[in-house]
Amino acid sequence: MDRSSDMAENPKNTKKNNIDALDKLGQGIYNQIIAGENPYFDLPTRGLANVKYSEEKKILTMGSGLSRRYFLNVGHVRKFVQTIAMAALSKELIQSDKHTSLRSAFYQVRRTIPGTKIDIVDDQVETNKAIEDLELIIDLTREQLHINANKAGAVAGEAIVEDRGDVIDWSKMGSGGWAIPSNVEDLIFKKIDAKFVIYMEKQTIWDRLNEDKAWKKLNCIIIASQGQATRGIRRLLQRLNREYNLPVYILTDGDIWGVYIYSTIKFGSIALASASDKLALPEAKFMGLTMDDIERYGLKRHLIKFKDVDISRLNQIKNYEWFKKSKQWMEELGKMERLGAKVELDAFVAKGLSFMTEHYLPDKLKEGKFLD
Amino acid sequence: MDRSSDMAENPKNTKKNNIDALDKLGQGIYNQIIAGENPYFDLPTRGLANVKYSEEKKILTMGSGLSRRYFLNVGHVRKFVQTIAMAALSKELIQSDKHTSLRSAFYQVRRTIPGTKIDIVDDQVETNKAIEDLELIIDLTREQLHINANKAGAVAGEAIVEDRGDVIDWSKMGSGGWAIPSNVEDLIFKKIDAKFVIYMEKQTIWDRLNEDKAWKKLNCIIIASQGQATRGIRRLLQRLNREYNLPVYILTDGDIWGVYIYSTIKFGSIALASASDKLALPEAKFMGLTMDDIERYGLKRHLIKFKDVDISRLNQIKNYEWFKKSKQWMEELGKMERLGAKVELDAFVAKGLSFMTEHYLPDKLKEGKFLD
Repeated sequence: MDRSSDMAENPKNTKKNNIDALDKLGQGIYNQIIAGENPYFDLPTRGLANVKYSEEKKILTMGSGLSRRYFLNVGHVRKFVQTIAMAALSKELIQSDKHTSLRSAFYQVRRTIPGTKIDIVDDQVETNKAIEDLELIIDLTREQLHINANKAGAVAGEAIVEDRGDVIDWSKMGSGGWAIPSNVEDLIFKKIDAKFVIYMEKQTIWDRLNEDKAWKKLNCIIIASQGQATRGIRRLLQRLNREYNLPVYILTDGDIWGVYIYSTIKFGSIALASASDKLALPEAKFMGLTMDDIERYGLKRHLIKFKDVDISRLNQIKNYEWFKKSKQWMEELGKMERLGAKVELDAFVAKGLSFMTEHYLPDKLKEGKFLD
Repeated sequence: MDRSSDMAENPKNTKKNNIDALDKLGQGIYNQIIAGENPYFDLPTRGLANVKYSEEKKILTMGSGLSRRYFLNVGHVRKFVQTIAMAALSKELIQSDKHTSLRSAFYQVRRTIPGTKIDIVDDQVETNKAIEDLELIIDLTREQLHINANKAGAVAGEAIVEDRGDVIDWSKMGSGGWAIPSNVEDLIFKKIDAKFVIYMEKQTIWDRLNEDKAWKKLNCIIIASQGQATRGIRRLLQRLNREYNLPVYILTDGDIWGVYIYSTIKFGSIALASASDKLALPEAKFMGLTMDDIERYGLKRHLIKFKDVDISRLNQIKNYEWFKKSKQWMEELGKMERLGAKVELDAFVAKGLSFMTEHYLPDKLKEGKFLD
C-alpha cells in the first residue's frame, strides 16, 4: 500500500512543538521568579511504586504520583539546575538542527559556577537523570529533545524512506541493510509496499532471511538488532504500525528471554515506563518459536536444558500482571516450564538453510497463529 | 580517485579458488584411503607458544609448528571427523551461494552416526574449533568458507559499492549509514572518491561526524562499530587500503583501550594470529586522542583517573613486542602512565558540537601527525 500522499512526516515531531514545550517550562519558571515565588516544577514520581499496568492502554504507565522540585531547597537545587541546564541544551540542539549523545550531553552541560568551585554536574549519572526528568516534565522523548541513545541494528524490505535529504530504498541494501539510526523521529516514509514487519532478536537470523530475500518473497520489512530492541527500533516499529497499520511480529528463540524481548516491545519496560506511550506497541504479536513449534517442526533433538537463571526468569515473568491476564500466555509459559528446555531459531537450519523462509514463516502467516 | 575500471571484484575470493582448496583437502584424504594409509592432515599448532610477531610483515603470525591429525587415532578421530564435516558443509555453502553463521553451522553439522548413539558434535565449541582448524589447513578465512561472524557497525562516505546486485551509495545513507555486513569478500567497489578512511571506536562519535557530513567536508569514508572492530570491518579497512591505497586512521578515546583497538586492527590479535594476513593492516595509523592532544586542546578539565584495570592493561600493552619496537609509542605510553588518567573523544563537544569536524580532524590531517 502506498500512502506517500499524507502522513509522510512524523506528525508529532515538529520542531515548533518541541521548542514550545521547552519554552513553556522556561516561561513558567521565569514567571515564578518575577512574582517573587520560589521557582519549582512538578514531575511524576519515579520508581517501581509508581509504575502501573494500564488495563485500558495495555501498556506499562506511570501512576499519578507527582513530586515538586524547588530551586530554593538545598536538597533540590542541584537537580533543579541540572534539569534546567539540560532543557537549555535541548533547545539549542533543536534550534541548530544538531543531535548529541547521552555521554556528550554530560560534557556539554559540565561547567563551573562562576566565582565558586562547584561544577553543575560531576558525573554522567546526573545528566542522565536530568534528561529522564526533563522527558517526564514536558512529555517528550530524549530523541525529540535531540539526545540520542546508542544505535544498533539493520533493516531491509519493501519500503523507501527519506532521511536528512537522502532517499533510501530498503529493498536495495545488499547484504548489510540500512543501519537503523538511534533517532527516527524525522524519518519520512516515502513508499511502504510491505504488508507487515518482523523484528527478530538475532542478527544472524536476519542475515539468513535477508540472503533468502525473505522480505521480497513475503512482502514485508525485516528488522534486527542483537537481543533487546533499541529505542530507535522500538520507535520505528511503532511508527510503521501507527502510521501504516502494519502488523508487527516478534521472532525470537523459544525461551524466556525471547518472551521478555516481546514483552518489552509490546508493553514497555519498568525502567522506561514513562516512555511507554512513545515506545510500547500493544499491537505487537509473537510469531515464535512457541513450545508447539518444537513438536510440530521436530526440533526436540535440539533442546537445550534450562539453567537456574532461565528458571528464575521464567518464574518472574509468569508473575507479570500483563502475562497473567492472558490465558494463552499462561498456557505457553506453563508448557515452557514443564519442558524445562529451550530451542533456538538457529536450529531450523538443520532442516535446510532456507527452511524458515520457505516453511516456518509462510506457515505462521497462513495460519495467523500468533501469541498475543 | 576512480579506479572502477579494474580491481573491482575482490581478486582473492573466487568461488573456484575456494572450492579447489576444499577439494584438494578431500582429494588428499581420498588418496590416502585408496592407498591403504591412515588418513591425516597437517595443521599449524595453535596457542600462544606458536604466535610470533613478524618483524618483516609487521603483524602477528603463526610460527612454523605443525601437528598432524590422524583418522585412526582415538585421540584425534573426533576432531578429524568434525573438521571434514565442516569442509563438506563449506563446499555445499559455496556451491549454493549461501552463507551461514557459527551457531547455525553447529546445527547443520550436528547428526548421529548411523547405528550408534554418537553425535559427531555435541557443542558449538567443537564446530567453532573445527572451523578455525579448517581455516588454518586450507588457508582461507571463515568468510571465504561462507561462515559469517556477527555483524555490527555502519559506514558513510564518498564511495559507491555493489553488493548482491544492489548498488549502494555510501554518501546517500541518511543518519543511519549502511550496515556493514559480516562478510565483505564479495563486495564490489564501483567508485571510490574518498582519499582516506577513519575507523572510530564509538558509534556516537560516528553519529556526530555523520550529522556534520564530515566525510563530505574531508572527502573520506567513516566507519564505526562499538569498541573492537568486527572481522567484517577489519577486512573492509584492509581491502580499501590494499585495493585503493587509502590510508586508514584509527580514532579512539585517549586511553589504553583505544590503543588496544588500534593494536588489533594494525597487528592482528593473539587469538586470531592465524588470520592476520587476511585481517591485520600494518599500514593503519593512530589519529588520537594522544596525550599531547589533551594539552593542546585544553581537555585537562575532562581527565578521568585511571582505575586498577586501566593500569594493569597499560602494563601489559607496554610489554607487547610490537609496541616496544616503536620509540614513538613507548613515549606515548610513558606519558599516559605518568598522567594516570584518560580522556574521551566525547569531551570535544565541550568546545562546540562540531569541534572535531571543524578543528581536530583538519588539524591532524594537515599536520599529518599520526602515531605509527
